[in-house]
Amino acid sequence: METIITSTQNPRIKRLLALQEKSSERRKSGLFVVEGRRELEHCLAAGYEVECVYTLGDSPLANLPTCIVSPHVYERIAYRGSTEGIVAVVRARNNTLEELESLTSGRSEGTSPLFIVLESVEKPGNLGAVLRSADAAAATAVIVCDPLTDLYNPNLIRASIGACFTVPTVACTSEECITFLKTNGILILTAQLQDSELYYDTDMTGPTAIIMGTESTGLTTQWREAADAHIRIPMLGRLDSLNVSVSAAILLFEAVRQRSV
Amino acid sequence: METIITSTQNPRIKRLLALQEKSSERRKSGLFVVEGRRELEHCLAAGYEVECVYTLGDSPLANLPTCIVSPHVYERIAYRGSTEGIVAVVRARNNTLEELESLTSGRSEGTSPLFIVLESVEKPGNLGAVLRSADAAAATAVIVCDPLTDLYNPNLIRASIGACFTVPTVACTSEECITFLKTNGILILTAQLQDSELYYDTDMTGPTAIIMGTESTGLTTQWREAADAHIRIPMLGRLDSLNVSVSAAILLFEAVRQRSV
Repeated sequence: METIITSTQNPRIKRLLALQEKSSERRKSGLFVVEGRRELEHCLAAGYEVECVYTLGDSPLANLPTCIVSPHVYERIAYRGSTEGIVAVVRARNNTLEELESLTSGRSEGTSPLFIVLESVEKPGNLGAVLRSADAAAATAVIVCDPLTDLYNPNLIRASIGACFTVPTVACTSEECITFLKTNGILILTAQLQDSELYYDTDMTGPTAIIMGTESTGLTTQWREAADAHIRIPMLGRLDSLNVSVSAAILLFEAVRQRSV
Repeated sequence: METIITSTQNPRIKRLLALQEKSSERRKSGLFVVEGRRELEHCLAAGYEVECVYTLGDSPLANLPTCIVSPHVYERIAYRGSTEGIVAVVRARNNTLEELESLTSGRSEGTSPLFIVLESVEKPGNLGAVLRSADAAAATAVIVCDPLTDLYNPNLIRASIGACFTVPTVACTSEECITFLKTNGILILTAQLQDSELYYDTDMTGPTAIIMGTESTGLTTQWREAADAHIRIPMLGRLDSLNVSVSAAILLFEAVRQRSV
């Protein structure tokens, strides 16, 4: 017979809330929080280790360590206010560029690797949305250089609707990333408005990495100089910007189109 | 010497808050609220009539009726909590399909008209994001059929970063829209996964309308049957959906690409 946690002051609940709110807490403990059945299923499929599932009572997923909580406690820990009834604490993993290397050479379908690289991305929600686009286009991986957010931010997980678990994601420095791409013969295409060619005039059928900067300041000189080509999406309207996940999707699906021809 | 409004109970402030919060209030009064300098500039450029600009004191834009408010009041009326210092009440307009007709025949650059049609869109933020993508691709107009949101919802305006003013937008019934498209010889392409061809195998160089359903239920039979062709974006990952504004952008920019060749 399991005990039901009824107080938000319970140490386990307090730790869970801290993991949701503070990246420092996630970094220190190597744990993070996943909410929602679908997201947790993708997380398990990717081989993550679940420490504990917090739920209202129905056994949500077999064979997982479970804590039952009262509706009062659940309401406090559920980020979405949804009634899906699943909030889990999961052990983080740090993917490395070395792991990507084996992934790059071992691509099963024979198609060339396709990367999205984001420099200094600030908003977790934007990174999550990029991951969702990357999943749809079956990108090999997303590489996040010098990130200003951690990869297990709750807003990121939510915006990605679980793509953070289906798409390999690596955080590293820009220098490490440039070395990785050049060593592996991957074309570096930087998305920038100045000194650039139209993206659909650029050959993306070989191994390709698309590099995108922040919405506020764009790409650093380091990346512009490392590029094999600069590409741009034509801005034909009166505003001068697209959301970064929208831009990523347009560029990724142009690669998909070119590779299907 | 102008009076400074210092109370959130001031009738003008109460009405402004009601206009932000209630679509019924917007419908009844024919007024809506715009926040932010950039958004208001796009709104003015589109010829909207400003009833009053509420500001902290610096004259924000010359020759507009202005009310000065205290920081306390401003904090309450500023949706974004930003310090841009501009919240304006503006008179709504109802664009009609008839107006689009003249727009369609009078296209200056000689390129074919390109429409995005959204059926029963629910989330104002999604519609706003679609408008932003439509602006970038210079779509002729966005047509919203049987909408479940009004076109002047604050979340819509914010997500569009002003594109709701730069892109002509019309609300009508699906029936009216189908008649409009067929009468004007515009190709109807419905975005749907079943019984569809890949979007990049479809000719979009002539007058084209891309029809998108809701994320939850997709398109109705009425639209599927009215279609000249069904098109799909291949879902190559593990998740089975893209955000509607991302899908719209991929399809619109494929039309842009084809038309540039």
